[in-house]
Amino acid sequence: MPRYKLTIEYDGGPFVGWQRQANGRSVQQAIEEAIARFTGVEPRIHGAGRTDAGVHATGQVAHVDLDRAWAGDKLRDAVNAHLRPEPIAVLSAEPVGDEFDARRSARARHYRYRIVNRRAPLTLHRGHAWQVARGLDAAAMANAAQRLLGTHDFTTFRSTECQAKSPVRSLDRLEVDRHGDQILIEASARSFLHNQVRSIAGSLKLVGEGKWSADDLQAALEARDRKRCGPVAPPDGLTLVRVDYAPP
Amino acid sequence: MPRYKLTIEYDGGPFVGWQRQANGRSVQQAIEEAIARFTGVEPRIHGAGRTDAGVHATGQVAHVDLDRAWAGDKLRDAVNAHLRPEPIAVLSAEPVGDEFDARRSARARHYRYRIVNRRAPLTLHRGHAWQVARGLDAAAMANAAQRLLGTHDFTTFRSTECQAKSPVRSLDRLEVDRHGDQILIEASARSFLHNQVRSIAGSLKLVGEGKWSADDLQAALEARDRKRCGPVAPPDGLTLVRVDYAPP
Repeated sequence: MPRYKLTIEYDGGPFVGWQRQANGRSVQQAIEEAIARFTGVEPRIHGAGRTDAGVHATGQVAHVDLDRAWAGDKLRDAVNAHLRPEPIAVLSAEPVGDEFDARRSARARHYRYRIVNRRAPLTLHRGHAWQVARGLDAAAMANAAQRLLGTHDFTTFRSTECQAKSPVRSLDRLEVDRHGDQILIEASARSFLHNQVRSIAGSLKLVGEGKWSADDLQAALEARDRKRCGPVAPPDGLTLVRVDYAPP
Repeated sequence: MPRYKLTIEYDGGPFVGWQRQANGRSVQQAIEEAIARFTGVEPRIHGAGRTDAGVHATGQVAHVDLDRAWAGDKLRDAVNAHLRPEPIAVLSAEPVGDEFDARRSARARHYRYRIVNRRAPLTLHRGHAWQVARGLDAAAMANAAQRLLGTHDFTTFRSTECQAKSPVRSLDRLEVDRHGDQILIEASARSFLHNQVRSIAGSLKLVGEGKWSADDLQAALEARDRKRCGPVAPPDGLTLVRVDYAPP
């Protein structure tokens, strides 16, 4: 069966998350149903990252095996036509070899967390940012973030429901930059633990507020204790930006 | 009566436009009603630019006269509290002198028009961009745009319903830049005619498609004939970014 790599953008707001769940409509289900509408067979698609309810993507990647061969552009357009009016779009569809696995072949995942740091409520970014009214020191956040780079046991920064066997991950990038009233946190790693970026974002907010020092953040990491994590940041601000693979 | 300058952000999607109209809810009406809820008197607010239905703002400016004196921050928070859940936010409220007039005192207005240039439909930018499937040559658009800079009779690029006495305007900036699949058109002038930016964006799209040359765009300008305008770009992509005033 020919295999395809799909690069997918979505507004996570209306969904229970990427993965199929009994309690509501998922992005995965919407795409699988869209494909079934024109192939007659409902396939199973496999995503690179299981984004939570309310989390967005500009570059989620999934693979899917189909009964027949498609030109990539035709497949992309057909899925998109049958996805309407869901806020999900296949940006590209490419034939790939059987060895390609969206999750296992991924070399790096890139997430962005957006804070809008102001008193006024959100309008244009509603559902797509975390509004923090209290002034945050983005430079202090950027500085403290460096303490989390590298290979660590991230038990403090993962959900108690995380199913990964190991809590050890290698964080390759964690940058914090202010752009006007927005603070963007950019995080890159080969793979992330469940809720890792939101846990880190919530803890960095404490640093920005002056409640935690960089040393406090490092001590929380080293404690390997979930109870030492700051309040987990809401899903609205998080976007899976891109997943990298070896060149074909 | 003390006068205040309000800087306002809004998602224009649910509104009939900035200005009060009989056919639906306007941004102006929503703000006036919000102020009435805590002052007991419905004031009249005066905006710098009359954005159309569906057009957004990150920096609309308005002035309003109130019965009593307010600290700016208190006024901002009070209006925002009474605006909920409308997608309108007062970013700042500042006391100004009686000579300040949001429309007449404006020295420059800055608009941004966003095109998402791809086959896939919009998800995250739905309602906030113009999706153009056919590949556009942004460099050709940027080049042609230079022909519109300076002081001209912009009759070709204004709505037949435009109420301005003169069709002559000075366009100080018209930049076109591609960022991935987005093309941003940035336009600045002391003031604009009705539908001027959307008319220019629609005509620049023809240039990007290769249907018009830069000479064609210039000829359309020089014809001073509304019928020579390209199809007007939809409102979704347009944002009033900022209005400049003399320093107080």
